[in-house]
Amino acid sequence: MIFMIIVLRLDHRRERDKRTSTHCGLASRALGADKIIYTGEKDEKLLATLRDVSKRWGGRFSAAHADNWKKVLRSVKKNRFTTVHLTMYGIPYERCLKKLRKKNLLLIVGSEKVPRAVYDNVDYNVAVTNQPHSEVAALAVLLAGLKKKPVLAGARLRIIPQAKGKKVMETKK
Amino acid sequence: MIFMIIVLRLDHRRERDKRTSTHCGLASRALGADKIIYTGEKDEKLLATLRDVSKRWGGRFSAAHADNWKKVLRSVKKNRFTTVHLTMYGIPYERCLKKLRKKNLLLIVGSEKVPRAVYDNVDYNVAVTNQPHSEVAALAVLLAGLKKKPVLAGARLRIIPQAKGKKVMETKK
Repeated sequence: MIFMIIVLRLDHRRERDKRTSTHCGLASRALGADKIIYTGEKDEKLLATLRDVSKRWGGRFSAAHADNWKKVLRSVKKNRFTTVHLTMYGIPYERCLKKLRKKNLLLIVGSEKVPRAVYDNVDYNVAVTNQPHSEVAALAVLLAGLKKKPVLAGARLRIIPQAKGKKVMETKK
Repeated sequence: MIFMIIVLRLDHRRERDKRTSTHCGLASRALGADKIIYTGEKDEKLLATLRDVSKRWGGRFSAAHADNWKKVLRSVKKNRFTTVHLTMYGIPYERCLKKLRKKNLLLIVGSEKVPRAVYDNVDYNVAVTNQPHSEVAALAVLLAGLKKKPVLAGARLRIIPQAKGKKVMETKK
C-alpha cells in the first residue's frame, strides 16, 4: 500500500514568503511528501521553480495553488486523510509520530497568523518543540520522522555522495 | 559533561536572506544549539530578533557576527570541536549521526555558493538527502537527530501543549 503526504502551506505572500515558501516546497519534496498546495497569493514563479526541480532531480512531486484551505481540508477528509497542523502550541510530535506513519496525511503549515478554525478542524495539532522557530524547520523535522522515502524516478541529475567535494551524475535520455 | 553546538551561517545578505537567516537562528535555538554566528553582511536587526526571543522564551542562546569564516573554523578547531558542513553533495547524515552525538560541534550552513575550501577543511560534509532543498530544513533535521535538548532557564513565556488551541503561561518576575 502506498501512502500519500500532502503539505498545505497557508497564506503565501509573493514578496515576503518567496524564499520560505520555496524552502517548504523543496524540503517537502526531498523528505518524502508527494504534493504541496499553497493558499494565499497566486505565484506562478514559485510553482515553476518546484516543477523545474522535479524535472531535473526526478520524481513526481507536484505543486499547486488553491483558493481556500477549507475546501482542501474537506476534500482530503472525504478521502480519509489524517490531518495534522504544525504549531508551536500543539502536543510534542514525538508523542504521535508512530500513529502518523503509514497513513495518508495532510500536513498544514501556516505563515503569519493561523485562523482558529484550523486548530479546531484538524485531527492533530502538533509541535516540533514548543518554541518559536520556523515552519520550514518544523515541517522538515516532522517529515524526516515519518521516514517516507521519496521516489525519484526519471532524474536527469543524481548526486554521488562524497566525503569532500561534489560529484553529480547526468543521466542521458 | 556539557557539549556545545555552534552553528555558522555563511554569507548572510541582509535583504535576500532576512527570513531564512532568522529561521536558521530560531531553529538552532529551539533544537538545542547554543550559538549562531553569521558571516556576510552585518545585520543588527537579525541579532536583536534572536536576542529578543531568548529574552522572552528563555535560555542562553547567543547570536553574533564574524567577518571571516576561516577564523571561526580555526578557533573552534583549536578547542577540538568537530566541524560539519551541511551540503547536498555530502554523505548521508544518518551514517555519521551517532559519531556526532555528545561532541562539541560546529555546524556550517551556506547560502548561495559555498567556497571549496569549506568542503576541504571540515571533518564531515554531510547531506540531509542528496536533493536540493533548504539549509533551514537540513539544519533542523540534523539538530533534531543530535537530540540535544535546549536549556530554557529564565523563560518569561512557556507554552502548555494543547490538543486544540493555545495556552501560554507567563512567569512573573
